[in-house]
Amino acid sequence: MNISVIATAQQAQDIDFSGKTAVVIDVLRATSVITTALDNGAQEVIPVKTIEEAQKLYSISDPSSTLRSGERNSLKIDGFDLSNSPLEYKKKVVEEKTVIITTTNGTNAINNIKGADEVMLACFRNASAVADYIFGRLSDHSSRDVVIVCAGTQSRFSLDDGLCAGMLIELLKQKTEVETDDLGLLLNRFYNDSKDNLFGALSGCFHLKRLFTLGFYDDIRFCLQTNSVTTVPVLRNGRIIKHQNL
Amino acid sequence: MNISVIATAQQAQDIDFSGKTAVVIDVLRATSVITTALDNGAQEVIPVKTIEEAQKLYSISDPSSTLRSGERNSLKIDGFDLSNSPLEYKKKVVEEKTVIITTTNGTNAINNIKGADEVMLACFRNASAVADYIFGRLSDHSSRDVVIVCAGTQSRFSLDDGLCAGMLIELLKQKTEVETDDLGLLLNRFYNDSKDNLFGALSGCFHLKRLFTLGFYDDIRFCLQTNSVTTVPVLRNGRIIKHQNL
Repeated sequence: MNISVIATAQQAQDIDFSGKTAVVIDVLRATSVITTALDNGAQEVIPVKTIEEAQKLYSISDPSSTLRSGERNSLKIDGFDLSNSPLEYKKKVVEEKTVIITTTNGTNAINNIKGADEVMLACFRNASAVADYIFGRLSDHSSRDVVIVCAGTQSRFSLDDGLCAGMLIELLKQKTEVETDDLGLLLNRFYNDSKDNLFGALSGCFHLKRLFTLGFYDDIRFCLQTNSVTTVPVLRNGRIIKHQNL
Repeated sequence: MNISVIATAQQAQDIDFSGKTAVVIDVLRATSVITTALDNGAQEVIPVKTIEEAQKLYSISDPSSTLRSGERNSLKIDGFDLSNSPLEYKKKVVEEKTVIITTTNGTNAINNIKGADEVMLACFRNASAVADYIFGRLSDHSSRDVVIVCAGTQSRFSLDDGLCAGMLIELLKQKTEVETDDLGLLLNRFYNDSKDNLFGALSGCFHLKRLFTLGFYDDIRFCLQTNSVTTVPVLRNGRIIKHQNL
């Protein structure tokens, strides 16, 4: 398996994903949020780039079964139903609902991927399930080339996404032979050096510090829990749904 | 001092360098080559993007004092005087000469930087001298914001450049208070974990392995020597000259 790592959502625009499996990571917090929403029974999550797109889509949806969610500057968008805190996506709130989400980095990363064989979402909470899913698809060769897209923050590489990419590479290395690029090598090494203390390894991370300053301690703690769920979000025709094991 | 790190030459195109000091790193081999050429007495090095630009500039230069150099696919360009091996840039070859150079990554990185207060070149061989120079300029505030541009290889992050960036950050941290971005944090940590065995830390590096396969062992050994020279190449009006201490 060949794994390459892209450092930001912006860079994903320049990549040819044809014949490849793409894995998007935005630990703090978009892919953690979407994984949680689907794990708690949301029917689908629709990632859009702008607030206007979200409102337009909502205006033609059934309001009783649709939620608008996301953030700008890490905070809830005026008039929306949910912020970008995964703790809000409880079963009683999201079950059987369609969630329209727009965030600064994560939903851009998802929408910047064009032509991939498959697009899935990973975070610390589902990393092991994502590795299982990718490995399970190796037999039909569609997972031979994997591109991990770290969403980043404000067009810059973000250490939380990178650490999770390093974890995913490690989980895949435990299953099969893996060749990775230089960024993948570095991040895999970083994860192996840090796995006993993820929070400590991220203590200097710009985005984590920003969320900490805003008081989102519980969000951070939740997003840094590893392998807590088995839900693998996959993109199908612009909608993210929970992969159902065959 | 604020230090940010750019992972590839391509990304440098999107950065606003105004009010900033830019440091370009292409360890294997462009910035090692240019540092060596100037250290051995070359009058100036002119970085150009294409072979055609190099030939055109050469055609209007004095051939007795001008050399064409560089590489494509790591190998010497047909008809040029020098390849991209720093070992060729001996005093008897380059002294008092103008060297026109074009390489796949490094010279692009240099030419992609627009509007910086100052552009300088670093490699393992002159890292300490570059740190001294940057620190010496802090008093007039022009070094307060430093952007390290890792040239990369074929539009991808390259571990050799990243390790050298991590070293430069460490050298500056020993002199002054440094704030760095997430990539800088990661690379500084990587350097501190690896400084006793740079070659071992780079054993998986794609570009190093390629040069190794081509038989450039001596080039690699030369480029991984740390703090061997005090020459700091600086860009002035499109030409790279040796910074002369005042």
